[in-house]
Amino acid sequence: MLIVMRHDATDEEVREVMDLVRGQGYDPKPVPGAERTAVCVLGNKNPVDPSPYESLSGVLECIRVTKAYKLVSRDTHSENSVIEVNGVRIGGDRMAIIAGPCSVESRDQLFKTAEFLASKGVKLMRGGAFKPRTSPYEFQGLGEEGLSLLGEVRSQFGLGVVTEAIDHINFDVVEEVADIVQIGARNMQNFSLLRRAGKSHKPILLKRGISATVEELLMAAEYILTGGNANVVLCERGVRTFSAHTRNTLDLSAIPVVKKLSHLPIIVDPSHAAGNREFVIPLALGAAGVGADGLIVEIHPDPEHALCDGQQSLHFETFSRLLDQLP
Amino acid sequence: MLIVMRHDATDEEVREVMDLVRGQGYDPKPVPGAERTAVCVLGNKNPVDPSPYESLSGVLECIRVTKAYKLVSRDTHSENSVIEVNGVRIGGDRMAIIAGPCSVESRDQLFKTAEFLASKGVKLMRGGAFKPRTSPYEFQGLGEEGLSLLGEVRSQFGLGVVTEAIDHINFDVVEEVADIVQIGARNMQNFSLLRRAGKSHKPILLKRGISATVEELLMAAEYILTGGNANVVLCERGVRTFSAHTRNTLDLSAIPVVKKLSHLPIIVDPSHAAGNREFVIPLALGAAGVGADGLIVEIHPDPEHALCDGQQSLHFETFSRLLDQLP
Amino acid sequence: MLIVMRHDATDEEVREVMDLVRGQGYDPKPVPGAERTAVCVLGNKNPVDPSPYESLSGVLECIRVTKAYKLVSRDTHSENSVIEVNGVRIGGDRMAIIAGPCSVESRDQLFKTAEFLASKGVKLMRGGAFKPRTSPYEFQGLGEEGLSLLGEVRSQFGLGVVTEAIDHINFDVVEEVADIVQIGARNMQNFSLLRRAGKSHKPILLKRGISATVEELLMAAEYILTGGNANVVLCERGVRTFSAHTRNTLDLSAIPVVKKLSHLPIIVDPSHAAGNREFVIPLALGAAGVGADGLIVEIHPDPEHALCDGQQSLHFETFSRLLDQLP
Amino acid sequence: MLIVMRHDATDEEVREVMDLVRGQGYDPKPVPGAERTAVCVLGNKNPVDPSPYESLSGVLECIRVTKAYKLVSRDTHSENSVIEVNGVRIGGDRMAIIAGPCSVESRDQLFKTAEFLASKGVKLMRGGAFKPRTSPYEFQGLGEEGLSLLGEVRSQFGLGVVTEAIDHINFDVVEEVADIVQIGARNMQNFSLLRRAGKSHKPILLKRGISATVEELLMAAEYILTGGNANVVLCERGVRTFSAHTRNTLDLSAIPVVKKLSHLPIIVDPSHAAGNREFVIPLALGAAGVGADGLIVEIHPDPEHALCDGQQSLHFETFSRLLDQLP
Repeated sequence: MLIVMRHDATDEEVREVMDLVRGQGYDPKPVPGAERTAVCVLGNKNPVDPSPYESLSGVLECIRVTKAYKLVSRDTHSENSVIEVNGVRIGGDRMAIIAGPCSVESRDQLFKTAEFLASKGVKLMRGGAFKPRTSPYEFQGLGEEGLSLLGEVRSQFGLGVVTEAIDHINFDVVEEVADIVQIGARNMQNFSLLRRAGKSHKPILLKRGISATVEELLMAAEYILTGGNANVVLCERGVRTFSAHTRNTLDLSAIPVVKKLSHLPIIVDPSHAAGNREFVIPLALGAAGVGADGLIVEIHPDPEHALCDGQQSLHFETFSRLLDQLP
Repeated sequence: MLIVMRHDATDEEVREVMDLVRGQGYDPKPVPGAERTAVCVLGNKNPVDPSPYESLSGVLECIRVTKAYKLVSRDTHSENSVIEVNGVRIGGDRMAIIAGPCSVESRDQLFKTAEFLASKGVKLMRGGAFKPRTSPYEFQGLGEEGLSLLGEVRSQFGLGVVTEAIDHINFDVVEEVADIVQIGARNMQNFSLLRRAGKSHKPILLKRGISATVEELLMAAEYILTGGNANVVLCERGVRTFSAHTRNTLDLSAIPVVKKLSHLPIIVDPSHAAGNREFVIPLALGAAGVGADGLIVEIHPDPEHALCDGQQSLHFETFSRLLDQLP
Repeated sequence: MLIVMRHDATDEEVREVMDLVRGQGYDPKPVPGAERTAVCVLGNKNPVDPSPYESLSGVLECIRVTKAYKLVSRDTHSENSVIEVNGVRIGGDRMAIIAGPCSVESRDQLFKTAEFLASKGVKLMRGGAFKPRTSPYEFQGLGEEGLSLLGEVRSQFGLGVVTEAIDHINFDVVEEVADIVQIGARNMQNFSLLRRAGKSHKPILLKRGISATVEELLMAAEYILTGGNANVVLCERGVRTFSAHTRNTLDLSAIPVVKKLSHLPIIVDPSHAAGNREFVIPLALGAAGVGADGLIVEIHPDPEHALCDGQQSLHFETFSRLLDQLP
Repeated sequence: MLIVMRHDATDEEVREVMDLVRGQGYDPKPVPGAERTAVCVLGNKNPVDPSPYESLSGVLECIRVTKAYKLVSRDTHSENSVIEVNGVRIGGDRMAIIAGPCSVESRDQLFKTAEFLASKGVKLMRGGAFKPRTSPYEFQGLGEEGLSLLGEVRSQFGLGVVTEAIDHINFDVVEEVADIVQIGARNMQNFSLLRRAGKSHKPILLKRGISATVEELLMAAEYILTGGNANVVLCERGVRTFSAHTRNTLDLSAIPVVKKLSHLPIIVDPSHAAGNREFVIPLALGAAGVGADGLIVEIHPDPEHALCDGQQSLHFETFSRLLDQLP
C-alpha cells in the first residue's frame, strides 16, 4: 500500500504514519517527491487495511497496490481453468452453449424444449425452479415441482441441468438435481449463499451483479474457492447504467479483462442484457467476437405466452439460426 | 397499460393485439393517433404483464400506467406511518437519530459508545454482529458473541439496538436481540430474507440497494408488508454512479420522492455515502434539509483502530457537534 | 402523448386537462381505466410539449408516444444509408476501416503511418490536428500545421483524411482538408458546431457523447440533417458508467439498436473504449460480431513515445493481426 | 507517479522502466514489496504522463499521485474566493440567490419576473437568450432580442443579469449585457468556449457537465483561470445516473468535496436536478444544508405556459416560500 501525504504535511505527521505502520508489524519506506511525500508499506502478506491511515492527519489518500483476491487470480494459476459438465468443456476451445426457458412452467413446455435442444446437440439446459422476482406479485417459479421436472428431463434426454438456488435452504435440493448451480445477479454478494456454494461438489455459475465491478465479481468467486469449490463459471449479463435502450448494458469488455486477471471461464447471457429478443443474436455474436467461453440463452416453445421474460426468449427457429451463425 | 403500435402497423396487427387483450380477460380500447395507433388495456385489477404484447408483430412498446406496489403506496395509506421504537418516533416531527459503530468489536468499544450515546440522549444504537464483506479475508463480525454484547448494552443503558441479519438463519437470533433488524444494501433483493422479515414482529430497517431504483426499493418493502410486517423504515445510503469523489453518491432527492410515493419513513446514512468522515456532517445536514425522517451515523471511540470502516466513523466530539448543528 | 391522471383526480381536474389540450389546438380523448383515467392527445403533427400538462393538478405523468427525430429515422427512410468516401462504402456490406494516430505529432510519424496504411490497403486515415483535452496543460495538437501535414499525406498516399473540428471557426479550415470531419464526443451537443456541420459538403463522423443516450445521439444527428447534410456516420466509443476496468464502457448493444431506429451507418472506436491496447482487438472483433459498419482504430509507429493516448494505440504489427482476424 | 510492476516482472523489465524514467529527466526510485515491486517517479514539476510506462512489458499499472489542476486548487490559494456581482457576494457568508425564467420569452414575462424579484430583494436574475436544446425542433431562445430585453430589465430594476453563451461568437454579445456569463453543462468541455471565457472581464458561472467528475469540473475551471479570468463560480446541477425519479441525480456531496479541493465558490441548481417543481424546495434546502454558496432557481409568472422547462419552474408564491425557509 502507498500512503500519500498532503502537500503541506509536517515531518511530525509523516513520522506518525510511519509509527503506525511499524506498530502494525509492517515496514514503512518514505518516498519523498517533488510536491509531496508518500510512504510505502512493505512486509505485508495480505492486503493492508487503509482505514487507520486515512484517518491520520496529514494523509491525503491510501492507494492499494496488491489485489485483494488470490485463488481466482491468474497470478496464482496461469493456465485457463476448464470445467467439464456433461461432456461440455467450459473454458476450452469451443464456446459452450446453455439454453432453455427463463423458468420451468410446465411438463409440456420443458419437454418440448429439451427435445429440441437434444435434437440440436445442445447438452446443457437452463430452467429456473426458484425465481427471484422484483415484485411479490409476479410468478415465483414452480419450486420443488420444477426441480423434479428438471430431473426427469435430465435422465430422459441426457441434458445437464443449470438451475438457480436463491437461498442456502433451497441450495440443498437444487444441488441434488442440478449439474450446475446458478447464483443469480441479485445474490452475487449474498455471502451466506456463496459460502454454501463453496461447500458444494457441483460447479457454480456465478452471475455478475447488476452494478458489480469486475473486482467484486472476482471477490465473490473467491468466497466460493476459499470454501473448497474451484469449479466456478463466471457470467456477464449486463450492468445497470444510464443507458436504457436495452434492459441492461452488456459490458463485453469484461470478458477480456476477466480472462487477463483470472483463470476462471466466463460466459455471456445476451438475453437478460438485451431484454428484447431482437437484439439477442447480435449480442451473442458480439460475445463470440470478444472471446467469451460460452453463452446462456433463453428460448421458449411459445414466448408470447411465457410466464416470465417472454419478450427476451428466442423462438426455436431463431435459436437454430444463432447456432448456425456462431463461429 | 398502453400498447403503442409501430408507425406502419397493419390493421391486422392491431386486431391481433386486441384479440390477445380480450383473450387475457381485459378490455382493449384502440386510440388512433396522428402517426400511430395505441391500444389501452382496461379492466385489469393487477398490473398487466407486457411480455406477451411486446412480442407481437407491429408493437413498438408497452407502457405501464399502474405502479406495481400497493401496500407501501401513499395511494392506499395517505398519512405518514410512524414507527415507534424505544420511545423514538421514526417518521414523526423530529429527526430520529441512530448511531454507533460499524461493527461490534469488543466489550470495551461497545460500552464506551453506549455510555456516550446515553449521555447525549440518543436512544437507538447501531452495531453489526454479522457483517457482509466484499472479501472473504476481511473481518466478518463477532457473530453471536457480538449479539450478546448488544443485548447487555441494551439492558444496561436502555438503548434500542439496530443490527443486521444477513441470512434467514441468523435472522432468528438477530431478531431476539434487536429492536430494529437491518437488511443491508446488498440484501435488498434477497427475497428469502425479505419474506422472513415479513414474518417478524420487529421493525425492519431496509437499506436501498447500491443500484436500486426507488421503485425497486418500494417493491422490496412491499415483500415485507405483504408478509404481515408493516413496520418498515427505508434508508438512503448512496448509490453507485460514475462519480467517485465519495464512496457512494448520496441521492438526497430520493427522500422527497419516496415521501410522495409512500407513507413509510425514510432515513439517511451519511457515513456509507461519504466513506470519509470529513463529509459526514455536511451530508447529514443536507439530509435534514431535504426532509429525511432520521439519520444513521457511524461513530467509534477510536476510529483510527476500527476493524471496519474506520475512515468514515466520527469521533465522539465530532458527533456531538453534529447533534448541536441539527435543526 | 398520453396524460395519466392521479388515482384520486377529480372530474374537474380531468376536464381542465382536456380544456388545455383543446386550447392548444389538439383533440383530447379520455381513456377511463380500472384505477385511473388517462387522456390521449390526438391531432398533433409534432411532438407535444408535456410541460404545461405536468403542472396541472391531478396529473400524475405525461408519456410521450412519438419519437422526436424524423430525418434520421428508419421510419422515414427504410434502406440503409451508404456513405462513400475515397472509394470506401461506409454502411455497405464490408466493414470500413479508419486507422491512424490519436494526434498528428510530426511529419515522420504521420508519413510512416500513412505508408503503412497504404501498404495494407486501408484507405481512410484518422489523425487529430485540433485536440480537445481535459487539461489545459496537455498537448493540444499541432493545429493548422497538423492539417497541412494531413493534406500532404492525402495527396501523396491517396488516403482519405478523417480529422476533428472542435469549434465552428476551425471547422472552415478542417473542412478544406478533411474527407470526413469528425465531431468528438465532448461536442456531441455543441449545437453551434452541429449546425455548422449541417451546412458542410463533407461527410460528418459524429461520436456518441460520453453519457448520451441513443436518442440524444440521433437528435444530434438530426441537427446535421436538418441543416442539409445527410452524410452522417455515427460512432459508438464507450460511455461512462461505474465500471472502471476499461476507460469507457463500450456499449455494443447500441449498434443493433441504432440500426433498427435509424438508416445511418454506425462504426465503433475500440481504442477510446478500451483505453489500453491489450483490449482493442477483442473489442474490435466484438464490434464485428454485433454488426458494426466499421472501425476507427488508433495506431502509432512508436506508441511508447506518443504525445497522446499512447497506451491505447496499436503497434503496426498488432493492427495487421487485427486486419487478418476480421471476418 | 507510482509505477506498479506485475507480480512476475523480471529484473530486466524493472530496469527498462527505470531507464525510461531517467530518459524523461526524472528520478526513479524502486520500492520492493512483498509481492511486487513498484517504481516511484521523482523530480517532476508537472504531472507525469503515464502512457509510455503503461505500454512497457512487466508494468501492471501507473498511479498518479499529483493532481492535475493548480490555479483552482486550495493548495495554491487557501482562502475562499468571493466573487462580488451587483452587490451580492458569492462565496461569502450568506447564500447568494439567482432566480428567473429558463428562457426569455417576452417583455411581459421578463418584466413581471424582474419586478417580482426586485420586490423580494433578489439582486441577480437568470434568463436564457440563447438556449441549447436537445432537439432542433424545440424553442431555441429569442437570441439578441432576448439579450436586449435583459439589458432593459437590468437598467430598469437594478438587477444583475446571468445569461448563457453557447459559442464563442455569441459570447461577445452576451458578455456586453451579462453581469455573469453562464457556460452550460453541455459546454463544460467546450474548450474553445472556456478559452474565450478566460479572456472575459465578466465572472463566469460554470455548470458541471452531466457526467463530469469533480476533477473534470475543476480542470474546466482551470482552463478559464489560465486564460486570466479568476472570477469563476461553479454550479452543481445534477448528474446522469441509472436513477430516474428526478431529471438528474443531484450530487450534493460535490459541494463539500469541491470546497475542500478548491477555493472557488459553488452554487446549486435544484430546478434542473429535480425536473419537477414539487422537489425544488427540498433540494434547495438540502443544498443549504451541505453548505452551498448559493442557488440558481427557475421561476416563471405562468409556468403552465412556459416555452421551456415549465414543469420545473416555481410559481412566484412558491419561490417566496422557499426564500422564507432558507436559513
